[in-house]
Amino acid sequence: MPRYYRYLGELLDSGVERISSNELSRRMNVTASQIRQDLNNFGGFGQQGYGYNVKYLYDEIGKILGLNEQHNIIVIGAGNLGQALANYVKFEKLGFMIIGLFDVNPALKGVTVRGLAIHMLDELEDFCKRRKVDIAALTMPKQTADAIAHRLVENGIRAIWNFAHVDLELIEEDVVVENVHLSDSLMQLSYNIVKNRR
Amino acid sequence: MPRYYRYLGELLDSGVERISSNELSRRMNVTASQIRQDLNNFGGFGQQGYGYNVKYLYDEIGKILGLNEQHNIIVIGAGNLGQALANYVKFEKLGFMIIGLFDVNPALKGVTVRGLAIHMLDELEDFCKRRKVDIAALTMPKQTADAIAHRLVENGIRAIWNFAHVDLELIEEDVVVENVHLSDSLMQLSYNIVKNRR
Repeated sequence: MPRYYRYLGELLDSGVERISSNELSRRMNVTASQIRQDLNNFGGFGQQGYGYNVKYLYDEIGKILGLNEQHNIIVIGAGNLGQALANYVKFEKLGFMIIGLFDVNPALKGVTVRGLAIHMLDELEDFCKRRKVDIAALTMPKQTADAIAHRLVENGIRAIWNFAHVDLELIEEDVVVENVHLSDSLMQLSYNIVKNRR
Repeated sequence: MPRYYRYLGELLDSGVERISSNELSRRMNVTASQIRQDLNNFGGFGQQGYGYNVKYLYDEIGKILGLNEQHNIIVIGAGNLGQALANYVKFEKLGFMIIGLFDVNPALKGVTVRGLAIHMLDELEDFCKRRKVDIAALTMPKQTADAIAHRLVENGIRAIWNFAHVDLELIEEDVVVENVHLSDSLMQLSYNIVKNRR
């Protein structure tokens, strides 16, 4: 779904109003029947022989993805990766607003990134009481990730975007976790390099 | 495959020598029959009723992923994300060595990240002649990504790890590209937040 949303957004930007599943298939490198099946699962947007209305499909998929509302994010760990996330302008366009950065390094206290102050981690509880926080991004070392994740959940946060090189062991059923493993994508690249040689 | 490799590595670290497909299934949250099918596709490592030899499976999957050789990486764009990549110690353990960082910002000239000097982009051609570069990671703005990608390919680089928020339009068949879309994983998280509410 995110990939459809991204492609449809690019089509909109280039002024395309209607697209057939065959054309979308060619652009996305997915079979047309896969596309029809995926989109039918989400309510059947297509009309036979007429193609998809790009704007309508884009908006509907956006709603399914929860992009019609704002999500407030805090970033735990204000090192290079945390600061890189805070600098991604694109997230805001999708409704993901980074509203705070946290770290344990006193040297970072009061430093600002794109106008956002870096807070010390002991201010977390207070911050979560004052502000609505929907998502916490974890960019600290994996040794501390599980403990911090539990602390975030105790503070009412129900979604974790995890960059901490470890799959979190969160047992709470109502907490959603998305693990980002950059090394997986590097291994996939290396696999394709080897395959390409054959 | 990267995911299997990661889980098997964690099993090895915790001293597990053999594992059944059922147990691996439970840990990885994939059906046992899916696991048997995946692993059979790559040469059938299992023995009925005996489980998998973790070390053997780990090594064999490592070879399939090309991790038995070293891959030299250069990072184009030495901003926060580029520096974050250069600081990931884990990549080295997998045989991915970052050997150079490049940027166009003169203020970064000669700055070092973990002992690596940041080069100016006009030194790229010379660098690629002197050193074997297997992979280029792109972390610069998407406006310049396509032009840089072509320049990298002209310099003999055959693999691109792309963080530049745009799917590259590389037509060369022998170049492999792995696109990393952080916003896709954020949208997936948001989708799960909405789904979880129902």
